[in-house]
Amino acid sequence: MNKVKIGIIGVGNMGSNHCVNILEGKAPEVELRAVADIRETRRTWAKENLPDTVTIFEDGDELIKSGLCDAVFIVTPHYDHPGLVIKALEHGLHALCEKPAGVYTKQVREMNRAAAKSDRIFAIMFNQRTNHLYRKMHELVQGGTLGAIKRVNWIITDWYRTQAYYNSGDWRATWSGEGGGVLLNQCPHNLDLLQWICGMPSTVMAKCHNGKWHEIEVEDDVTAYLEYPNGATGVFVTSTADAPGTNRFEITLEKGKLVCEDDGLTLYMLDTNEREHCHTAAEGFKKPEGRYVELETDGANPQHMGVLNAFAARILHGTPLVAEGAEGINGLTLSNAMHLSSWLGKAVQIPFDEELFLEELDKRRKASGLKKEVKEVTFNTEGSYGSK
Amino acid sequence: MNKVKIGIIGVGNMGSNHCVNILEGKAPEVELRAVADIRETRRTWAKENLPDTVTIFEDGDELIKSGLCDAVFIVTPHYDHPGLVIKALEHGLHALCEKPAGVYTKQVREMNRAAAKSDRIFAIMFNQRTNHLYRKMHELVQGGTLGAIKRVNWIITDWYRTQAYYNSGDWRATWSGEGGGVLLNQCPHNLDLLQWICGMPSTVMAKCHNGKWHEIEVEDDVTAYLEYPNGATGVFVTSTADAPGTNRFEITLEKGKLVCEDDGLTLYMLDTNEREHCHTAAEGFKKPEGRYVELETDGANPQHMGVLNAFAARILHGTPLVAEGAEGINGLTLSNAMHLSSWLGKAVQIPFDEELFLEELDKRRKASGLKKEVKEVTFNTEGSYGSK
Repeated sequence: MNKVKIGIIGVGNMGSNHCVNILEGKAPEVELRAVADIRETRRTWAKENLPDTVTIFEDGDELIKSGLCDAVFIVTPHYDHPGLVIKALEHGLHALCEKPAGVYTKQVREMNRAAAKSDRIFAIMFNQRTNHLYRKMHELVQGGTLGAIKRVNWIITDWYRTQAYYNSGDWRATWSGEGGGVLLNQCPHNLDLLQWICGMPSTVMAKCHNGKWHEIEVEDDVTAYLEYPNGATGVFVTSTADAPGTNRFEITLEKGKLVCEDDGLTLYMLDTNEREHCHTAAEGFKKPEGRYVELETDGANPQHMGVLNAFAARILHGTPLVAEGAEGINGLTLSNAMHLSSWLGKAVQIPFDEELFLEELDKRRKASGLKKEVKEVTFNTEGSYGSK
Repeated sequence: MNKVKIGIIGVGNMGSNHCVNILEGKAPEVELRAVADIRETRRTWAKENLPDTVTIFEDGDELIKSGLCDAVFIVTPHYDHPGLVIKALEHGLHALCEKPAGVYTKQVREMNRAAAKSDRIFAIMFNQRTNHLYRKMHELVQGGTLGAIKRVNWIITDWYRTQAYYNSGDWRATWSGEGGGVLLNQCPHNLDLLQWICGMPSTVMAKCHNGKWHEIEVEDDVTAYLEYPNGATGVFVTSTADAPGTNRFEITLEKGKLVCEDDGLTLYMLDTNEREHCHTAAEGFKKPEGRYVELETDGANPQHMGVLNAFAARILHGTPLVAEGAEGINGLTLSNAMHLSSWLGKAVQIPFDEELFLEELDKRRKASGLKKEVKEVTFNTEGSYGSK
């Protein structure tokens, strides 16, 4: 087998983009064999823009059962991710799932159980893990050379979206359609990176503001406070209404400080562990000595196609994925914990009560109102998904 | 009268520094006539280092009653500030008070009442208000040209202190001696600037960690979440154990973003109000247009001597103070609200219950332990009080 025959389920903003990239040869070990979309407008787009070699289905089930594909790439609204992944694996297909892994962890846990039983490859589209800067942060923090984490602060408020964006599809920014707002749609990348680089916190206290800046029923502004098992603290701030917005990820550790901002990563490294210095220094105000250290990275940032190529290479050659599908639950756990904390108005311990979360989510899904002014539009997403 | 005859009450780290500056001619309209300190070691320092024209008293009361001075500068531990200010005003002296105004707002409210009834000048040492960058931020935000505030984020973790610092005086970092830790000792400047530039929040939710990094009973690590009357949110993070630490103050407004970091201030200004753009743009991902704007400041940053000189000039010529004494209560209100929120484990509305705060503080004062290993030291404070 030379190429992985892939079917893309869901060809909206993102899915159509992936089709074009594959057809342009950006995933040389992948062959686009089929697409599926329940919306006629999107099937029409496929008919007009994709070659005849690509079969068009009305839904993902048909595509999965068609026998045309070795693998599926699931780019549907979030609620459908786990069900489609499970179905694909059951039919012997490999599955690459867009982020988030799902909407609630209980659902994702079922998907992970199915994947654990299957011999098929299961990957998730955490394309920002391919960014050389975040890879370097992961390596430095998880490698341990900087000592334990003391503080984390990520201000990620450059996910700007207009009201027109939210009006562009009736599933967008609704409890019933997306299961949340900025945490479910824009931030899965950041929440995954946060846990990939810093590990999982043990306590989350968050304030999610629903429809603060846009006419939507879900959150478009979140501030979360985190506590880690070792006592470290963190803050995560996000919004879709800040302009120009900020993307600044700071990690303070016992032996230094990392700051990733505006496509740059700096490391200030201490000569001694601060914890030791604090208790041995005779001076009252003297900081441990340190200096900025030049960081070398490979500069590569292949993003979505990097994840897709790694997926194909794993199938064909057994090489590593960018992100194992089962890891998708971690970022979603953070997102669910933030929602739950905000709904309950108190701190939430991880692991939290997944039944309670689902009950609370279901209350909101039942009350979920269809948006009045929907104008279905497919935007060009170029440069919009934090491809730095 | 050519010069203001001043007496300095409290000549520890900071007070001795002020004496030296006055004697070096840095406050040309001020004449140092007396000092007072209850500690013999400090009076010995005064005897050895100050000219014979400076009378040395064993306590502030004696200095106030001596008739030698027109004004006092109070540089004692925080609990004594309001009592000494009230006494000075009652004896017809002008008063300049070190920050914080006091330890609890109830006490400071009494001081402000006394000052309101007096015709004497009452000022407070908010020396960081003299910084040209913070003055520019105040002017831009309060001037209204950038529209309403949407988000504030101040990471001020460069107040580094070693254990030796905390061991240097038995009043330091105790509930009975200081009434708090980093919020009462290091952050009064920042909390004052925060309210001076952004106004007062209406809700505070904070987590104060006591003795997290040092062997002390009070907080040395704080994360606070703020909500403003207009719905804006904020985060304030501080610590005395981060190295190298961060001082980054970001304000996002409807028409731009200000960031003050590392002795620089940047303004990104939008061509349109983001709120209008959000609801009128046809594009989904398009941010409002904008650009970095060159900011001009006068570059001046006279710090403590600037505040002292303005105090003398107000007395002699009726010109404006850097900070009216009565404004000291605002930053302290923030500090008290953060403590109270952390003690109660819930959000606190401003104004909060001042009796409840005092009850809770008194519980901690009663249980307050004297530190075992105290080694009285007077440090050179140069460069330690955020003189940027």
